[in-house]
Amino acid sequence: MIIIDSDLNVPLYLQIYGQIKEKIILKQFLQGSKLPSTRILSTTLNVSRNTVESAYLQLCAEGYIESKAGSGFIVLKLDTSIISKLKSKNSKNSEETKNNLLEVKSSDFYKYDFKYGNIDASDFPLRIWRKISNKCLTALTAEEMTSYSASKGELDLQIEIMEYLNKSRGFSCNPKQVIILPGLEYCLSMLSQLFRKDFNQIALEDPGHYGACNIFVNNGYDVIPIGLEKDGIDLEELENSSARIVYITPSHQFPMGSVMPIQKRLKLLDWAMRKNGIIIEDDYDSELRYNSRPIPSIKSIALKENVVYIGTFSKALSPSLRINYMVLPQVWLERYDKIFATYQTSVPLIQQKTIQQFMHLGYFDTHLRKVCLANKRKHDILIHTINEVMGDKVIIHGKNAGLHVLLEFNNGLREEEIIIKAKNYDVAVYPVSTFWMRQGNYSNNMVMLGFGEIHEDVIMDGIKLLNDAWFAE
Amino acid sequence: MIIIDSDLNVPLYLQIYGQIKEKIILKQFLQGSKLPSTRILSTTLNVSRNTVESAYLQLCAEGYIESKAGSGFIVLKLDTSIISKLKSKNSKNSEETKNNLLEVKSSDFYKYDFKYGNIDASDFPLRIWRKISNKCLTALTAEEMTSYSASKGELDLQIEIMEYLNKSRGFSCNPKQVIILPGLEYCLSMLSQLFRKDFNQIALEDPGHYGACNIFVNNGYDVIPIGLEKDGIDLEELENSSARIVYITPSHQFPMGSVMPIQKRLKLLDWAMRKNGIIIEDDYDSELRYNSRPIPSIKSIALKENVVYIGTFSKALSPSLRINYMVLPQVWLERYDKIFATYQTSVPLIQQKTIQQFMHLGYFDTHLRKVCLANKRKHDILIHTINEVMGDKVIIHGKNAGLHVLLEFNNGLREEEIIIKAKNYDVAVYPVSTFWMRQGNYSNNMVMLGFGEIHEDVIMDGIKLLNDAWFAE
Repeated sequence: MIIIDSDLNVPLYLQIYGQIKEKIILKQFLQGSKLPSTRILSTTLNVSRNTVESAYLQLCAEGYIESKAGSGFIVLKLDTSIISKLKSKNSKNSEETKNNLLEVKSSDFYKYDFKYGNIDASDFPLRIWRKISNKCLTALTAEEMTSYSASKGELDLQIEIMEYLNKSRGFSCNPKQVIILPGLEYCLSMLSQLFRKDFNQIALEDPGHYGACNIFVNNGYDVIPIGLEKDGIDLEELENSSARIVYITPSHQFPMGSVMPIQKRLKLLDWAMRKNGIIIEDDYDSELRYNSRPIPSIKSIALKENVVYIGTFSKALSPSLRINYMVLPQVWLERYDKIFATYQTSVPLIQQKTIQQFMHLGYFDTHLRKVCLANKRKHDILIHTINEVMGDKVIIHGKNAGLHVLLEFNNGLREEEIIIKAKNYDVAVYPVSTFWMRQGNYSNNMVMLGFGEIHEDVIMDGIKLLNDAWFAE
Repeated sequence: MIIIDSDLNVPLYLQIYGQIKEKIILKQFLQGSKLPSTRILSTTLNVSRNTVESAYLQLCAEGYIESKAGSGFIVLKLDTSIISKLKSKNSKNSEETKNNLLEVKSSDFYKYDFKYGNIDASDFPLRIWRKISNKCLTALTAEEMTSYSASKGELDLQIEIMEYLNKSRGFSCNPKQVIILPGLEYCLSMLSQLFRKDFNQIALEDPGHYGACNIFVNNGYDVIPIGLEKDGIDLEELENSSARIVYITPSHQFPMGSVMPIQKRLKLLDWAMRKNGIIIEDDYDSELRYNSRPIPSIKSIALKENVVYIGTFSKALSPSLRINYMVLPQVWLERYDKIFATYQTSVPLIQQKTIQQFMHLGYFDTHLRKVCLANKRKHDILIHTINEVMGDKVIIHGKNAGLHVLLEFNNGLREEEIIIKAKNYDVAVYPVSTFWMRQGNYSNNMVMLGFGEIHEDVIMDGIKLLNDAWFAE
């Protein structure tokens, strides 16, 4: 068991490093044995993977362990000469570590982890993906393999995505407007570069996607937080701000989960038209919709070319593929082509070919139906159990779409307590306070429950335990 | 034969579109036949692939051709109702097109193409790459496939690159300083974000890598051009500028090809130390060095943590992999981790695993030796033939490294004439004027000859033809 204490004035990685070192010296970790992977240990300790890696690298540098490609970190034979040095040096550390502890298990995840972000590994069509990837790899000629490829993406893939959007999101575009990118960070960074001459402010939903906020800040934009109403962004606040671009998640507002109704979408478009502004529509999980009809994308009802549409394969397929795309308004294409004339694509050719074939052969449609059904089942179990077990003790936000919901408490429990009480019952739920730019506006009584990664069989038990944790005492 | 005229006031894509349409109507292109690929036609016409694609898409939209995944663009059955419309509309266009023509062949590359940028496809170890990629794909678990992976890159790959740099570029670093990225565009964009708070100006070599310049401009930096001396950047001009960051290519200055001597490297480091500034060392083709000893990287001789080192697999292995990396000074890591805390990696996991295994199993070393030898052979043939055939009629810049040289003329020929005369003999050589920010400083009497892609057997003939083109008349 590794014990870390974030209140302690010792960097987390040093705490981990110190304790593993001690275990090696005390022969609790034997020569040749394998340390837990950085992924597992970081999840277990609820620290970043970087932190664990830093600890491991320090141990590598000092000769306690070594990294073996493919098999992780292995404990080395102990050089006794370093033990004495260590003992005197480390005793102070472990003394301090004993105060004020937050214990976590070292060999195990939380039994019930309502984590948001990842998806259910068992849904991924690994066999088919391997087959197609392999086929594409074999078909690639050495010439293709050694050339710079089309800067906005492979035309075949642009066409495939265009057809998909036409079918599923109700708008048609020229495939040249579809730009293939390796993730939201690069996508928003390209937009920041594209719009820099005309705009230096951007309006964001508050609470909202703090990752997106961070990207605009890093790119030198002034970020203007705009509050939410029940049905999405507060249009009056937006109107009164000086912003002329807005970044929004209308299909399933992140994190609150509201779906922007069509009337509001039209009003937002009117705002953009009057301000000569731009709407960046991030449709990150639009594929995942349950028990409700999809609402047309803003892009599909726009009369003017003032909507940038962003989609991703991260939620519907897998984040490790690193492929998303944006559809740029025709009017901005000329500048895009001009200022990015020297830019190469950032997505490997083989990756583009594979996903194109995956879509073209119909596997993407099949897969979407499958994950939609699987996630609908999980969603329905989750919502049903919460209603059944907790009744009106919590308010559920963001039902019927995506991969998470929020629970709001009205019994005086604060976010931190809600999370700690859950952990005491071996259930992980997650804070939402990080999503508010203006912390003062947050009522501090909500948590996030993701259901993308958790197995459907354990959702019911997890919710029952949460009820015990929160309401039975 | 498609004829385009860049002086004509008709967009290039419309010229291409118009002529193909005409050929379809005149049944020169028959129903079911395949148009040349966009890659081939763009190379042939010396226009961007975007231009050709736009023309093809317009033809698709109008129903003349269709795109078939995997087999390119196919001519459709002609709907006679559109012919009459077309004939009246298009006659004006083709009338105009007849003036002032630059003819190019439509079914063929230049016979001798000294193109820079791509590499020799036959050098790429396609079979081994497929094997390893396939092995990695099979070894990937569904869990790995569906998770977000480490944001700076996979630790195994960071370690592999660290070891490679230690061995080949003479410096050691912590693997956590090695950041895996999908190309120079993203790399410099990340650096722009990282340094934004402290710097808003950057010094660049002039002439220099205009792609890099473009990225900094797009990211809102003021770019300060600094002239070159024979041995690289003009330190006096740099000293007198207000810049505190400089982006340089010291191993093989792009495009002039000079190698910065050690004394100058030390002086540059002294400049950075005094200014409390930063050197961004782009070592883009350092692996390719012939008939000369490698010079230590600036990073390896720096006493302070003020050098960002950038390397790439594009030249030594393949640009289509979209992997490069930077080694960040330890002192900047903390800010990097902070401002990019929410950023995911942009390089697909499978791509990272494959290149890691490729390096780990020793294939990268073998491959480097092979391409170095192959390119040395081509380089030596090129230099030897130029010396033999042209003697002192040209000055060769940038020998003994990389994948290109420059030729300087002192017979009054201007760049444009040099290129046109070469094309008349079916040889493509390339302009360098684009590399000067301050065009007035360019003597307008040089061209670039790349030898990465051209086959070694034809280099000699190509150079002899160039001699005829330039000096025999």
